[in-house]
Amino acid sequence: MAADRLSVTFSALADPTRRAILARLSTGEVSVGELAEPFHISLPAVTKHLNVLERAGLIARGRNAQWRPCRLQAAPLKAAANWIGEYRRHWEQRFDRLDSFLHALQAKEKKHARKAK
Amino acid sequence: MAADRLSVTFSALADPTRRAILARLSTGEVSVGELAEPFHISLPAVTKHLNVLERAGLIARGRNAQWRPCRLQAAPLKAAANWIGEYRRHWEQRFDRLDSFLHALQAKEKKHARKAK
Repeated sequence: MAADRLSVTFSALADPTRRAILARLSTGEVSVGELAEPFHISLPAVTKHLNVLERAGLIARGRNAQWRPCRLQAAPLKAAANWIGEYRRHWEQRFDRLDSFLHALQAKEKKHARKAK
Repeated sequence: MAADRLSVTFSALADPTRRAILARLSTGEVSVGELAEPFHISLPAVTKHLNVLERAGLIARGRNAQWRPCRLQAAPLKAAANWIGEYRRHWEQRFDRLDSFLHALQAKEKKHARKAK
């Protein structure tokens, strides 16, 4: 179910360590050991996060038993971006309104400043 | 913490009913009762979802005691879109590679077809 894939993706992204892992992988393939280092968390903890990311299809792991490099899989991010993108006009409208309001405020202040002179 | 806000946003989006509620609100303000109707879930269940969305700053509720309309607040979606947008080149690259591959495959097939004639 498409809706469910999105839930799995968003749920996987709802953790700062998992987002940091994806950011690290965006520069290229990395082994699990290398991934664990900068996060100061145990290997089992990293493995847990990697399992969540793998189930969400956000990473793939090499099948080499010695060195199982992780790599980013961006396709689920595209679907998530498409979903959020549907709301773009809402946040743009909001900033447009804020912009108009600030312009009106500035114009008003200039008028008052002229009067005060 | 910026990272934490993102986790709260993604976590709120990780549910199909909550995403459907946001989609409904994207057309304008709606009362809680009206929101509950199309989802065939109880009012308390809808209220629970609305609380999650409100804590995430994705909706705001009117203070009118009789009719507390909900409305969409898109600012957290902008931050989420920005985060995901950083990965755009990854999914575009991937589709570029797939595209090149399909073109190469088509060229090869045409060549074979010509030879077969």
